[in-house]
Amino acid sequence: MTYTPTPADKFTFGLWTVGNVGRDPFGEPVRAPLSPVEIVRLLAEVGAWGVNFHDNDLVPIDATPAERDRIVREFRAALSATGLVVPMATTNLFTDPAFKDGAFTANDPTVRAYALQKTMRAIDLGVECGATTYVFWGGREGVESDAAKDPLEASKRFREALNFLCAYVRDQGYDLRFALEPKPNEPRGDIYLATVGHALAFITTLDHPAMVGVNPEVAHETMAGLNFLHGVAQAWEAGKLFHIDLNDQVIGRYDQDFRFGAVNLKAAFFLVKFLEEVGYSGSRHFDAHAYRTESYEGVKDFARGCMRTYLILREKARQWSADAEIQALLADLRGGDQSTIAYSRGAAEDLKARDFDRAALGARGLAYERLDQLTVELLLGVR
Amino acid sequence: MTYTPTPADKFTFGLWTVGNVGRDPFGEPVRAPLSPVEIVRLLAEVGAWGVNFHDNDLVPIDATPAERDRIVREFRAALSATGLVVPMATTNLFTDPAFKDGAFTANDPTVRAYALQKTMRAIDLGVECGATTYVFWGGREGVESDAAKDPLEASKRFREALNFLCAYVRDQGYDLRFALEPKPNEPRGDIYLATVGHALAFITTLDHPAMVGVNPEVAHETMAGLNFLHGVAQAWEAGKLFHIDLNDQVIGRYDQDFRFGAVNLKAAFFLVKFLEEVGYSGSRHFDAHAYRTESYEGVKDFARGCMRTYLILREKARQWSADAEIQALLADLRGGDQSTIAYSRGAAEDLKARDFDRAALGARGLAYERLDQLTVELLLGVR
Amino acid sequence: MTYTPTPADKFTFGLWTVGNVGRDPFGEPVRAPLSPVEIVRLLAEVGAWGVNFHDNDLVPIDATPAERDRIVREFRAALSATGLVVPMATTNLFTDPAFKDGAFTANDPTVRAYALQKTMRAIDLGVECGATTYVFWGGREGVESDAAKDPLEASKRFREALNFLCAYVRDQGYDLRFALEPKPNEPRGDIYLATVGHALAFITTLDHPAMVGVNPEVAHETMAGLNFLHGVAQAWEAGKLFHIDLNDQVIGRYDQDFRFGAVNLKAAFFLVKFLEEVGYSGSRHFDAHAYRTESYEGVKDFARGCMRTYLILREKARQWSADAEIQALLADLRGGDQSTIAYSRGAAEDLKARDFDRAALGARGLAYERLDQLTVELLLGVR
Amino acid sequence: MTYTPTPADKFTFGLWTVGNVGRDPFGEPVRAPLSPVEIVRLLAEVGAWGVNFHDNDLVPIDATPAERDRIVREFRAALSATGLVVPMATTNLFTDPAFKDGAFTANDPTVRAYALQKTMRAIDLGVECGATTYVFWGGREGVESDAAKDPLEASKRFREALNFLCAYVRDQGYDLRFALEPKPNEPRGDIYLATVGHALAFITTLDHPAMVGVNPEVAHETMAGLNFLHGVAQAWEAGKLFHIDLNDQVIGRYDQDFRFGAVNLKAAFFLVKFLEEVGYSGSRHFDAHAYRTESYEGVKDFARGCMRTYLILREKARQWSADAEIQALLADLRGGDQSTIAYSRGAAEDLKARDFDRAALGARGLAYERLDQLTVELLLGVR
Repeated sequence: MTYTPTPADKFTFGLWTVGNVGRDPFGEPVRAPLSPVEIVRLLAEVGAWGVNFHDNDLVPIDATPAERDRIVREFRAALSATGLVVPMATTNLFTDPAFKDGAFTANDPTVRAYALQKTMRAIDLGVECGATTYVFWGGREGVESDAAKDPLEASKRFREALNFLCAYVRDQGYDLRFALEPKPNEPRGDIYLATVGHALAFITTLDHPAMVGVNPEVAHETMAGLNFLHGVAQAWEAGKLFHIDLNDQVIGRYDQDFRFGAVNLKAAFFLVKFLEEVGYSGSRHFDAHAYRTESYEGVKDFARGCMRTYLILREKARQWSADAEIQALLADLRGGDQSTIAYSRGAAEDLKARDFDRAALGARGLAYERLDQLTVELLLGVR
Repeated sequence: MTYTPTPADKFTFGLWTVGNVGRDPFGEPVRAPLSPVEIVRLLAEVGAWGVNFHDNDLVPIDATPAERDRIVREFRAALSATGLVVPMATTNLFTDPAFKDGAFTANDPTVRAYALQKTMRAIDLGVECGATTYVFWGGREGVESDAAKDPLEASKRFREALNFLCAYVRDQGYDLRFALEPKPNEPRGDIYLATVGHALAFITTLDHPAMVGVNPEVAHETMAGLNFLHGVAQAWEAGKLFHIDLNDQVIGRYDQDFRFGAVNLKAAFFLVKFLEEVGYSGSRHFDAHAYRTESYEGVKDFARGCMRTYLILREKARQWSADAEIQALLADLRGGDQSTIAYSRGAAEDLKARDFDRAALGARGLAYERLDQLTVELLLGVR
Repeated sequence: MTYTPTPADKFTFGLWTVGNVGRDPFGEPVRAPLSPVEIVRLLAEVGAWGVNFHDNDLVPIDATPAERDRIVREFRAALSATGLVVPMATTNLFTDPAFKDGAFTANDPTVRAYALQKTMRAIDLGVECGATTYVFWGGREGVESDAAKDPLEASKRFREALNFLCAYVRDQGYDLRFALEPKPNEPRGDIYLATVGHALAFITTLDHPAMVGVNPEVAHETMAGLNFLHGVAQAWEAGKLFHIDLNDQVIGRYDQDFRFGAVNLKAAFFLVKFLEEVGYSGSRHFDAHAYRTESYEGVKDFARGCMRTYLILREKARQWSADAEIQALLADLRGGDQSTIAYSRGAAEDLKARDFDRAALGARGLAYERLDQLTVELLLGVR
Repeated sequence: MTYTPTPADKFTFGLWTVGNVGRDPFGEPVRAPLSPVEIVRLLAEVGAWGVNFHDNDLVPIDATPAERDRIVREFRAALSATGLVVPMATTNLFTDPAFKDGAFTANDPTVRAYALQKTMRAIDLGVECGATTYVFWGGREGVESDAAKDPLEASKRFREALNFLCAYVRDQGYDLRFALEPKPNEPRGDIYLATVGHALAFITTLDHPAMVGVNPEVAHETMAGLNFLHGVAQAWEAGKLFHIDLNDQVIGRYDQDFRFGAVNLKAAFFLVKFLEEVGYSGSRHFDAHAYRTESYEGVKDFARGCMRTYLILREKARQWSADAEIQALLADLRGGDQSTIAYSRGAAEDLKARDFDRAALGARGLAYERLDQLTVELLLGVR
């Protein structure tokens, strides 16, 4: 096995990921910035399929229209030259001080209006570059103190903004879906729509829920110690897994955006297994960045590592499904009466009257230790 | 101010809360069990309005029908004698070994069937005692290893069970609403429908979503470090705040179920303020228990403390809304153009063309430090 | 490779681990209790080297002296028959309600005296069975509210108790060392000596520090999100790694005591690598228990899994040390001037005057991404 | 009560705290930088007693000797003019890319040497400005992957560096003590000497332990969910509380450095109570910064709020100690035999033979709920 990525794997990176210059709250950049064109070439070199961006990753916030057009032209030329595609785009609504209190939920109505303007323009830019998915990460849509903002008011503002932007996309005739990216905190003390669950529920309250899904990120759910797979499965079942951000993270820490699989191989395995088995066909987007100790050679190691680990785990998922001992355990577990429970008065009466042998139900060993240990040994390559 | 509870405050406790005997994973009970009737009397003594129960808090799992009827009769007599009501009931689907792999999502279909039977009977019992809200805490609906259960399959099973039970309630003509109580983990490694958000999203996929809401619990969201107020607000906005469990908890720890306000007074304040200001009219249910160091005198101290702290914070919420300096800051923050953003092509074009003074937007100080400090001083009683 | 344990591996389990009956805060036991003799046989069957116990795991708290002697006789006969040894013993100072406020730090001086008595007797019992290490887990030495206990007073009490017990052991001429086992919380809100670091510092304040070390447990440091390896390394460097408790745990959750390696294979790998490379010669004690879904067949799977995973990781540690590419990266990293920095006025003056090329120091890529990815691939068995 | 700070309160701030420009991982600065002189004036205006600094807070890393001297001269003039003192100084060993792998524990020996040079020069600068405490926060002394650095080697390097610097200070005849500031993570994945406990233990291994203590920080211990008071108490008992960093933090999150008391008023209360009652006489240093939503007016609100909250809680601590009901509960709790347990063979034999009434010990209620509730009501100002 070579674990070499191909376009069919749909591996993507953001301009901001491999282009990350290694600044953190306590330190200055360690890598010189690359131009978007240089990043595209780097991604082509390591074998990525696509590249995503925030508006200002590509076009500086204060660029003139002429500069914008030149930058976009050069970027699209690099895409053509390398064969990379742009499946997703998004808006930077967090770097500029104007957004220090959020964008769509800011207390200042002028900030909210400016955020809408910036997003419309960024949507135009994304569509121009070929994006069909548009991500909303509301990184500053939150508070440090609940004295500062009414959560009901914030929710109303967020909804109005998304409704406006859905209407804009429809009015423009764009082939574009929205994906909300939840995060519980950082850089705000608490961020609204903290998890995949909160985002899924919120979507049902929008004017055009069909065009809005989610973009779950490993690190974001993991920060809160939630089981990422369960959130992804709920999104998938709801038909809302429009995009996914792969990386890794230690629970209960600052946003680490580590290389995919760098922390928890078992969790990464079950995630890859799920995505492959349900037939998820969207981007496998690595929203991660190299350690600050790295030069751009290390950045390439990082990017290759993300993709290799995914491919290794994909192979292991296939092996798991073909493992006779594992499959026998599963068949045994899921055995018995599989009939769907449809309500009827008679069925309810029958069920209420039925005799159950509680002790027998409780006494049966379920062999989950064995199943889990076999999984561990498969992951470790000794099976 | 006396901070003495009245029925209008709708303070309730579960039989299992003040009746908790103080067993924990490392220790045996420290308090002799009280009978349901004794618990009702204790709650009446401390001034509670209502009492809630799991089926087996009231009727032992192996009681004969005759025993059941006698117990219920005595319990209802105690309710009559004390004036306490039963606003909520629920099912114990976690204590018996039969439920070691969950109830509605257990891999064994016989366990799932038994769980339905037990819940129908428990619903009958709850309704017989006057309950109009029925809580579902799926404490064992989860896994320690994702090898053991397919999350999509689990979701399907959970939905089928709730659909069946909704149909049962409707068929019986019961005046009863369901409230799902989310929890991220414990006693299972990971529990499905981990947060208020996940539960709200799941409800929209049910056959009868209108009769199903949520029962958020302070401790459960706080275990995952989520902002409880934000989850409650989302539930309220969705019309789904059918019940609430008040207690306290340190982030990232075992389920502590501390006295309301025992950990984070500021968070408790914003919660009480929200419930009172939006006009939440349901039970204020204290799903908590006394420290294991306490005798039943300490249990009464605990119960009184829950209610007193709520009442103190309610008074402070009124004070906050009447504080001129605080209100002036808020008015300033929320000032400016409050017009709703309704989409029209013209509005979008105008907005895209508008000139914004980014620097000015970013330069404005928002006085959140001042607002938060005033809140702190109000809480500390020095304002 | 068969990954079959041998006595040389020094794998031990507590009576309370494989004998765990699967009770948790929300559920009753799922497995019938085994006698100590049965547990010894089970451990022999799965290939363990030794068995450890709390006094009351072996002898019930209310046993008569005659019962005690019979139980010990039968237990020692089982040890002889199976060849198992007892390297470690400890005291149960947490199950009985008498210890609800702790033992050595309880506010009630009678409880403190009783705890000393119980520990002296338990030490006698441990020594009688061959133990040379005696563990102190102060599971209830803590508080839920800092109003209840002065931390300075608690520390003083803890120290006095340990000094007394050290003197007792010396006076008896026992060949026994003490190992303090830290834990941050559960079952108390906060437990004193929360981490390996706190325990190491505390030991230096004892009368006989040489005979007191630590017993770090994976789950306990991991609950607080600390890097377990770093704590173990500090203990090792201080000559204080007297014992170790191996299991696994998700950060920020209830005490899970999962099978070794069940959560974080990478962390488990670095731990095994460390223990093997520094030449740790003590017990590899698995302080864990099977999922509550298991019968005793599952308990055996669990126990075998703990040992197999350790052995697999030990083999991988050897492979890591023999991997030319990994070792070349390490050599490069650790290259350059290795001279120890010894202070002299001249050395200081020279160093203060030296010219450093800061930019060059910052520009060098350190290849940690590559090193970590190679480690991941080695763990996954594809290297 | 006016809660106005006085010099006797020893309130200090770092240049980097009120001078923080509000940059975060996702956003650019929101406040224009102030010069050290301007910061001194701001601190004088709000009533601080002292100001602390990192070398490069005061003197840019690339300043010429002449610039350095001018800056120091102007700074000292501002101190004179305002009456502010400099009780503490420290080194910035984290901002420059040269320190991306740490300073004293970096794998590159040249980086380690440069770190020593920079620290000697910074010590000279601190002493020149009057500092008598010198803080070491090893923010980058850690790893993202344990493949990258041997923890034993790192510990050895850290010790050598501190031994060298202790020798330097003694050789220079400086009146200066060192205070190690622990932190578990951020900006590195895991930082060595993660908690107060680990630092206290490490100090005992140094050449000159008497001159090295700790600088515990609320936020750092709280990130790991540890009880800050317990760590501080252990440091105090060891005679090692050389300095303290006051701020606030939510458990399990990025380093927030919130205004003192902004998160957990109860924890802040017990901390202030402890510091005041034991007679801690060092600086009360606020290592915090204003929300990013604030202008410099908000920064002043923030600074004043830190001090006011401390003073309010100090008053409440006095009230607690004078509260008859609280003191009666404490007296009752701590009652009984207070004799120190001194070991003698006879005492041990007597104790082993003594009869204890376990049931009675377990049955006694300890009234901790009442004690804690009284504390809560005192904090809320309704007592």
